[in-house]
Amino acid sequence: MRIAILGGDGFVGWPTTLHLSETGHEVHIVDNLSRRWIDAELGVQSLTPIDSIQERCRIWKQVTGRALQFHLLDLANEYERLKTWLETVKPDAIVHFAEQRAAPYSMKTDRHKVYTVNNNVSCTHNLLAAMVETGCDAHLVHLGTMGVYGYSSVGAAIPEGYLDVQIDTPSGPKGQEILYPTRPGSVYHMTKSLDQILFQFYAQNDGLRITDLHQGIVWGTHTDQTRRHEQLINRFDYDGDYGTVLNRFLIQAAIGYPLTVHGTGGQTRAFIHIQDSVRCVDLALQDAPRAGDRVKIFNQMTQTRRVRDLAEMVAGLTGSEIRYLPNPRKEAAENDLEVKNDQFLALGLDPITLQEGLLSEVVEVAGKYAHRIDRSRVPAVSAWTREHGARVEHDPEGTRLKSVS
Amino acid sequence: MRIAILGGDGFVGWPTTLHLSETGHEVHIVDNLSRRWIDAELGVQSLTPIDSIQERCRIWKQVTGRALQFHLLDLANEYERLKTWLETVKPDAIVHFAEQRAAPYSMKTDRHKVYTVNNNVSCTHNLLAAMVETGCDAHLVHLGTMGVYGYSSVGAAIPEGYLDVQIDTPSGPKGQEILYPTRPGSVYHMTKSLDQILFQFYAQNDGLRITDLHQGIVWGTHTDQTRRHEQLINRFDYDGDYGTVLNRFLIQAAIGYPLTVHGTGGQTRAFIHIQDSVRCVDLALQDAPRAGDRVKIFNQMTQTRRVRDLAEMVAGLTGSEIRYLPNPRKEAAENDLEVKNDQFLALGLDPITLQEGLLSEVVEVAGKYAHRIDRSRVPAVSAWTREHGARVEHDPEGTRLKSVS
Ligand SMILES: NC(=O)c1ccc[n+]([C@@H]2O[C@H](COP(=O)([O-])OP(=O)(O)OC[C@H]3O[C@@H](n4cnc5c(N)ncnc54)[C@H](O)[C@@H]3O)[C@@H](O)[C@H]2O)c1
Ligand SMILES: NC(=O)c1ccc[n+]([C@@H]2O[C@H](COP(=O)([O-])OP(=O)(O)OC[C@H]3O[C@@H](n4cnc5c(N)ncnc54)[C@H](O)[C@@H]3O)[C@@H](O)[C@H]2O)c1
Repeated sequence: MRIAILGGDGFVGWPTTLHLSETGHEVHIVDNLSRRWIDAELGVQSLTPIDSIQERCRIWKQVTGRALQFHLLDLANEYERLKTWLETVKPDAIVHFAEQRAAPYSMKTDRHKVYTVNNNVSCTHNLLAAMVETGCDAHLVHLGTMGVYGYSSVGAAIPEGYLDVQIDTPSGPKGQEILYPTRPGSVYHMTKSLDQILFQFYAQNDGLRITDLHQGIVWGTHTDQTRRHEQLINRFDYDGDYGTVLNRFLIQAAIGYPLTVHGTGGQTRAFIHIQDSVRCVDLALQDAPRAGDRVKIFNQMTQTRRVRDLAEMVAGLTGSEIRYLPNPRKEAAENDLEVKNDQFLALGLDPITLQEGLLSEVVEVAGKYAHRIDRSRVPAVSAWTREHGARVEHDPEGTRLKSVS
Repeated sequence: MRIAILGGDGFVGWPTTLHLSETGHEVHIVDNLSRRWIDAELGVQSLTPIDSIQERCRIWKQVTGRALQFHLLDLANEYERLKTWLETVKPDAIVHFAEQRAAPYSMKTDRHKVYTVNNNVSCTHNLLAAMVETGCDAHLVHLGTMGVYGYSSVGAAIPEGYLDVQIDTPSGPKGQEILYPTRPGSVYHMTKSLDQILFQFYAQNDGLRITDLHQGIVWGTHTDQTRRHEQLINRFDYDGDYGTVLNRFLIQAAIGYPLTVHGTGGQTRAFIHIQDSVRCVDLALQDAPRAGDRVKIFNQMTQTRRVRDLAEMVAGLTGSEIRYLPNPRKEAAENDLEVKNDQFLALGLDPITLQEGLLSEVVEVAGKYAHRIDRSRVPAVSAWTREHGARVEHDPEGTRLKSVS
């Protein structure tokens, strides 16, 4: 297949690109490199030394003989170029990773809220409008988030996107299937809830074939392909904005920094290893809906854990100390979470468990690149509201941090 | 109160401005006059000869002694100016009409789809972010649409925004209240579904006090205040993009053009007279939610009717012929619709019925300004999909129309 990877320079997009290229597909990357600009804005860098996208593509060609096309294109602000590109490349499938994806970044200041909404809504909607306009009938696979469900469960396992409900009508209760009622917890998560409605409309009105992957928190960094050459290494974010909870614990452990748990750590979240994330995208690509079908929704996660249990697991492996800090997020202190992922299991996914993966990541990445860590970038500084702002994470090592925004 | 009317130069915004000014409020209009630019783009004009907004404000002052402030501001693209303006004016309440509001216009071409999404999402989200950032705790009243519900009813009367459902859980069925599952039928309606999620988030995360009015199709043109001076007259759209069904029938009747019914005319829609729309906004302003409350949702409509029944009613009053044309929209040919509007009735709304209102509008407006009508602008030309495009409304007078886009 000819596959377009939008956001192919990112943390999940890059290993997905390599995996699909290796599998024999013709892969085209689209990215505006905004994520690299945000690194510059925040004054942080990937723990791992990542090369330019052009260089990464060159190395991949050198190592495997397979070509990757890179197109510098801003999906949100270059609508006409997007159409031209679609008409030229004519992809059979499109994997859409290209959004601002950090909840803390999206809550940093009002400018970051506005940027996140404008960027993410326009990326997705421009793509949908351009596909209809150019008559592109590619299968669109989008990366959504488990966060669209919100974390106050209805009291049953979270189904894959759709919920069966009973509604009282004059002629008795009537069963109906609805999109799971959304309860996003940050501006970032909210944009994924908006995406869902865009997808529902374009699938229904124009018969676009769309799969939405409600992904859990991705952890780890290496995949089979990124290991093949030092310069193919994947990015690894550890800072308070882009670093996700488990990867942050790994890094904190590696540099002897206390594991920072926000609130009670009673928040239960869903997780998936980067290698499984890549496999899931591949499985989803092989299971395309037909024109006229409703949007196909998968829960792309493999395990749920309480944050404090993860901290304890990492502490147990490494001997690190755990520090409980005020929670900068507006969220329930404790929640249960049970999530269905039957569809990917049925398609053959054999998940990497936390226990086995954690050990190898600690050794390989965190240790090797620990010297590249800027300790002052480890604390989380974005607050969800004014009142939460008054109690954001201080440097648990003792010095109050200045805001990086 | 000091009240800001965003979109105060528009069809519903202008009479609302006058009504609230007359009631003694200090009224500030914000508008970027994009609606007037769209008239220019489409080569159409309001049936009624409307003055510039500056002149309208001057006349109102002359007639009543009451001042209106007009601020030229693009809510979608001038975020920093919006914040400054909010900090200067410090409104107690904000009524938000400022969106691209025509479904056919939103489906015209991909450029119009992209414009509608970007404009509407940014208007609403910029406003919310700016309110939080500037610490503005005004009551925000937004004009939504009945169209967010979609027109395939769940089999019961449409409640006011929220739906009670039963969900099966391991411990038996559990009742829950959810936002009514949205099923927008056009890109325009879709933007109002997106707005709902923005409101839900900002009410929950930041305690903003928000009322969302799910409005039916507005018809008529005069209100008590617009009648007070020839130059205070309200706009009246009759063209295929902005003219809403009932106003189009009135105009078609006035110029001896057949009443154009799309499809079978079996679509049931909800309606409200412009005078009632203005009253409802006033009632909603007096009934503000408190910080921390969920978004308050009213159904702002007074009657439901099938389109063909409306056509027959107008034909009966005027002797016009009815012409059935292919439907350019992708929608159910026939649907039932029963809608609850108990909240406004409880607050004292005494609705203007179609029967009594129709007669006066036909005489006063349609007849008086019939000479200003450009017959070639009467047909609807925007199609919902490619295949629908092949059968859009032809000029029922015989000549095929060229597209106006
Ligand atoms: N990383 C996670 O834990 C996680 C969890 C759930 C869902 N997701 C989703 O998966 C997707 C990929 O996540 P990631 O961790 O790889 O993020 P990332 O930030 O590393 O990658 C996103 C890429 O998209 C690009 N991009 C952003 N806006 C663009 C635009 N306007 N035009 C072109 N390119 C643009 C960025 O430059 C970046 O390279 C995102 O949509 C994210 O929301 C990620
Ligand atoms: N007219 C109806 O039948 C109807 C029915 C249901 C809901 N509504 C809703 O009521 C509201 C008002 O409708 P209307 O019929 O008065 O529409 P309108 O187009 O006459 O008025 C909207 C006004 O908002 C302004 N505007 C648009 N984008 C703006 C921006 N970026 N910055 C500043 N101003 C901007 C326009 O210039 C215009 O004056 C809309 O939100 C519409 O969706 C209308």
